[in-house]
Amino acid sequence: MPIRFVTSNEGKADEAREYLDDVERVDYDYTEIQGDLETVAAAGARDAFEALGGVDPVLVDDAGLFVRALDGFPGPYSSYVEDTLGVDRVWRLCEAEDDRRAHFRTVLAYAHRPEEDGDVQVETFEGSVPGTIVAPRGDGGFGYDPIFEHDGTTMAEMSTAEKNAVSHRGRALATFADWLAGEPAQRKGAQ
Amino acid sequence: MPIRFVTSNEGKADEAREYLDDVERVDYDYTEIQGDLETVAAAGARDAFEALGGVDPVLVDDAGLFVRALDGFPGPYSSYVEDTLGVDRVWRLCEAEDDRRAHFRTVLAYAHRPEEDGDVQVETFEGSVPGTIVAPRGDGGFGYDPIFEHDGTTMAEMSTAEKNAVSHRGRALATFADWLAGEPAQRKGAQ
Repeated sequence: MPIRFVTSNEGKADEAREYLDDVERVDYDYTEIQGDLETVAAAGARDAFEALGGVDPVLVDDAGLFVRALDGFPGPYSSYVEDTLGVDRVWRLCEAEDDRRAHFRTVLAYAHRPEEDGDVQVETFEGSVPGTIVAPRGDGGFGYDPIFEHDGTTMAEMSTAEKNAVSHRGRALATFADWLAGEPAQRKGAQ
Repeated sequence: MPIRFVTSNEGKADEAREYLDDVERVDYDYTEIQGDLETVAAAGARDAFEALGGVDPVLVDDAGLFVRALDGFPGPYSSYVEDTLGVDRVWRLCEAEDDRRAHFRTVLAYAHRPEEDGDVQVETFEGSVPGTIVAPRGDGGFGYDPIFEHDGTTMAEMSTAEKNAVSHRGRALATFADWLAGEPAQRKGAQ
């Protein structure tokens, strides 16, 4: 049974295929609620699972940049803040702080129905990458990549391979793949 | 039939009673989705209407501070931004801008079922107050009141009476009350 990754981004689906056998990308505009990443992703996965027929398992991701001195801002609203304040103003906010530690974080939510006629279950898996907010550097990447430095290099200065090696989404996918390998339905499939 | 105002804030219910005959305050933690004020309030009213029995009409409000030079930030996420960035940092962001115009805005959403066995309908009403973002002044109010100046006075410097006279929620309530007075069910009740 394929896992339906609900995303409009083919690159995310390709990254998922590095960790999972059978991924099908599906476009569906699920409702995003307000809350932390777990809450947003879990509600989205539940919504998409039902809307897409309630049979095939569904995967949804939500991600954000969390700045420690700003109490986690912009967090779950990173995309909105990028569109309104913009990355340069986020840098200026951090420039005024002594503590510039931050992390990128992804939460994956997997909605499935383990028993036919049973309840929908939603599991979440997280991955994060620590870093430091710096003045913008580099031409690659997108979003907050130019101001997020990991091991001396900003995400916008990394090659695709370097970036994938420190991918928060990749870390969440690896945790999810480990969990999935231990699931009864998967073990049955492997026999 | 009373209008059930879904809010944990008794002050908001009291303000609504200045514009509407029969307001009952109800505590219910409706789901807040991501989106503009209209979207958030309308989805909340629909959720609350169904959860509270699907008969009595329900009123929900959502409000935010919109800074023009920041593309409307913090907007629908004003409460989250207050809790994380804080009001002083929002001031500092605006201090760096030449254009410090802003407005406070409330959207009310009213969910009702005009015909028995008919569909739920949701109407929205808005009220806004223009102002300017300034360095914090005044000890009254809450939230962004100290940095929002209207007619030379910050909201935190105003008396309750002065503040009510320029209430964005009051303006939305007045528009709603006008609309309600023209509704068939209300006219019937008035005969």
